[in-house]
Amino acid sequence: MNIRKEKTPSQSKIEMTQLVLPNDTNLLNNLLGGRMLHWIDIAGALAASKHSNSKVATVAIERVEFREPINVGDMVILFATLTYAGNTSMDIKVDVYSENLETGIRIKTNKAYLTFVALDHQEKPKTVPLLIPETPSEISEYKLSEDKRIERKRKKAR
Amino acid sequence: MNIRKEKTPSQSKIEMTQLVLPNDTNLLNNLLGGRMLHWIDIAGALAASKHSNSKVATVAIERVEFREPINVGDMVILFATLTYAGNTSMDIKVDVYSENLETGIRIKTNKAYLTFVALDHQEKPKTVPLLIPETPSEISEYKLSEDKRIERKRKKAR
Amino acid sequence: MNIRKEKTPSQSKIEMTQLVLPNDTNLLNNLLGGRMLHWIDIAGALAASKHSNSKVATVAIERVEFREPINVGDMVILFATLTYAGNTSMDIKVDVYSENLETGIRIKTNKAYLTFVALDHQEKPKTVPLLIPETPSEISEYKLSEDKRIERKRKKAR
Amino acid sequence: MNIRKEKTPSQSKIEMTQLVLPNDTNLLNNLLGGRMLHWIDIAGALAASKHSNSKVATVAIERVEFREPINVGDMVILFATLTYAGNTSMDIKVDVYSENLETGIRIKTNKAYLTFVALDHQEKPKTVPLLIPETPSEISEYKLSEDKRIERKRKKAR
Amino acid sequence: MNIRKEKTPSQSKIEMTQLVLPNDTNLLNNLLGGRMLHWIDIAGALAASKHSNSKVATVAIERVEFREPINVGDMVILFATLTYAGNTSMDIKVDVYSENLETGIRIKTNKAYLTFVALDHQEKPKTVPLLIPETPSEISEYKLSEDKRIERKRKKAR
Amino acid sequence: MNIRKEKTPSQSKIEMTQLVLPNDTNLLNNLLGGRMLHWIDIAGALAASKHSNSKVATVAIERVEFREPINVGDMVILFATLTYAGNTSMDIKVDVYSENLETGIRIKTNKAYLTFVALDHQEKPKTVPLLIPETPSEISEYKLSEDKRIERKRKKAR
Repeated sequence: MNIRKEKTPSQSKIEMTQLVLPNDTNLLNNLLGGRMLHWIDIAGALAASKHSNSKVATVAIERVEFREPINVGDMVILFATLTYAGNTSMDIKVDVYSENLETGIRIKTNKAYLTFVALDHQEKPKTVPLLIPETPSEISEYKLSEDKRIERKRKKAR
Repeated sequence: MNIRKEKTPSQSKIEMTQLVLPNDTNLLNNLLGGRMLHWIDIAGALAASKHSNSKVATVAIERVEFREPINVGDMVILFATLTYAGNTSMDIKVDVYSENLETGIRIKTNKAYLTFVALDHQEKPKTVPLLIPETPSEISEYKLSEDKRIERKRKKAR
Repeated sequence: MNIRKEKTPSQSKIEMTQLVLPNDTNLLNNLLGGRMLHWIDIAGALAASKHSNSKVATVAIERVEFREPINVGDMVILFATLTYAGNTSMDIKVDVYSENLETGIRIKTNKAYLTFVALDHQEKPKTVPLLIPETPSEISEYKLSEDKRIERKRKKAR
Repeated sequence: MNIRKEKTPSQSKIEMTQLVLPNDTNLLNNLLGGRMLHWIDIAGALAASKHSNSKVATVAIERVEFREPINVGDMVILFATLTYAGNTSMDIKVDVYSENLETGIRIKTNKAYLTFVALDHQEKPKTVPLLIPETPSEISEYKLSEDKRIERKRKKAR
Repeated sequence: MNIRKEKTPSQSKIEMTQLVLPNDTNLLNNLLGGRMLHWIDIAGALAASKHSNSKVATVAIERVEFREPINVGDMVILFATLTYAGNTSMDIKVDVYSENLETGIRIKTNKAYLTFVALDHQEKPKTVPLLIPETPSEISEYKLSEDKRIERKRKKAR
Repeated sequence: MNIRKEKTPSQSKIEMTQLVLPNDTNLLNNLLGGRMLHWIDIAGALAASKHSNSKVATVAIERVEFREPINVGDMVILFATLTYAGNTSMDIKVDVYSENLETGIRIKTNKAYLTFVALDHQEKPKTVPLLIPETPSEISEYKLSEDKRIERKRKKAR
């Protein structure tokens, strides 16, 4: 019998820091929305790869809001954590903060949920380890992801 | 009395074509999800700028699914159209197709809905022209956007 | 007998839209000439690939003039159309417009003629479909391309 | 009397994660040395900015060795920590690890020491907070930096 | 009386070397035509800036042929030299060579002629030094540029 | 008997010229330190490749100081020269100058020493030609490199 491996969310947590350079800005001198989405996608992909020890492909990204403009010169910090692992797919939450380096003030600017699929060397979906949430917040994110998956399946079934 | 300008969706429609170069690929030799999101964001921003004759900032992007991998060498075509204009914000739909240039086969790969806000020279929100949908599909997208806005307000009110 | 395929210019027409970001500018805050030439080359290559259903390589680009500076924040629209198809090579015209998004004023900024060669999987030149010009302007561009080819051959023969 | 602010190394510690994409590679399909040095410079600058709450400029980077090739698809993790703060300049250590995402094996690939200077709004050097090393390893790095500074001054004096 | 400064072609000659990285390639693993045109434009602009001691804008680039594919890993060397200086505009020749670093074989791959205009701080055209060709080849390029300018004026006059 | 090939430093000398574009700048509008290090690495790699007629990998870069800020719009010129060739490794000196194009003033901004290793097609170290220094400055750089190598070996032996 083949026992499926287990991992906790903290075993694949990613912290990514970026500096907003002139090269990353839009016409308002703020971080381009598309650049932020690219960073979110990479941070999420790294967490999914680390959990599954495999290459991954992005399946979906949930609604992302851009409430706070991020200025050139700000530091951006992204935290990516697994919230749920299905058979071959994984849900990831990415929390994004920006920090004004002169004032030291850090604010939460974005929150994103993404789904990735693990791929083997033939680029076929591959079974991933079970996710064992530990902390109360990990358990509540796990429930939330599970509910959203059930909801999406129900909508498709209709 | 100041009469608000009116524009149709076709007056701000954007068609954007991209070639997937080695520079745009992930570890599977496919288009990076983040690069696609960047292109979607720019195509949407151009349509919103054209409607409002102003600079714009991304407010939100709805769930985007990546059902079909896009290969290096494929052509990607993005169509961005306004679906709804509020007082200072605009909803945009971006339809994405990829075309294998050797077979000529074009498939729909993604669909995205984004919201942008128009900004004046002080970077304050600015009134935008009314949107007058004309075709049946424009009218149905308009209704859909309006419903989603009402739904989001209701959720926040709770 | 192998009958050569026929295609009209409109079957391979490309429309490409770009936003001039800070990342694309020279020391005068205008679009870099080299970035424009890169976009022209890609738009032309896409039209040539679409006509020939193959990979293509740039053979030549004719004289390009830069009469009008294009500013950061402008939208650039490139239209690439086949003007002539030889045995394995294709001539393409790229018309470039820039649009100030705040005034909505669009001007023609550049015109370029390029030649591409179609390549098979061994990277050898490959026969391309005949080009059947339809509109009066397509027919006149076809004649113009043909004349320029004859002229170039005559110069080389000397 | 103006009392100089104090900060510990952990208050400005930076963790930066990068994925090696095809775009980052040399002719051997490994991470470009120059790309690595760019990441090291940015990680160090972020730590220096966070300690000094100001813009910073790179003054010097010490010898960096590239003992281990880093492959496309690997994850690179950089940790930047202040080792010493002078009057207006700061010494930073950057430790670099690469992780093969399929095996999960993480190795130390590089170690770099950099010096930055803090700049005020007139781009003049600006006093930075004192650095208070806490852990045994922070104290030993502090001593090491101090010794190297004395050594460099002695050499210049000669 | 204001005597116009004089400079020789060798006083503003530019030598630029580039390595073709994976990041610069097209679908055939060769240098992108547009990337080459960007390098030619920058090399020419540097020579024009050096002659005029001012910012410059590209006015035109003459026909460029791409006879030889340049491979990833090749070294590209560009030499830019002034051939002619008008009142405010300058003609530049750029000779491009590629070198296979393993065989050491260097071939001439491209030749380009560009025209730039010198701009003062108000971005108005600015008088440039006279060009004094010295060597026989500089004198013959000078005559050639002069002839082409007369030819273009005659065509416009018609 | 296999006689090892000999080459002089001038046979592999590289001159590389770059224009500092907005795309290359930090928050102070100066050239990014990391971009400079990338250029130094590429210039050095080209000289090493040219000497060894092979692919090369960076082994180490010595301390680099950034004494002079380089502004957007400046021209940067890098000269890379072999100073020493071991069995499979090569030492390179890169001298960097920046030139203000409006004043024509050129200053030396950086000096870097790097070591590269030559690699054969199996990516194994490969014997490189002997280096025969000719001029007094080449001979003195050769001695200096040799001394530093002996010094490093002695330190490791301890």
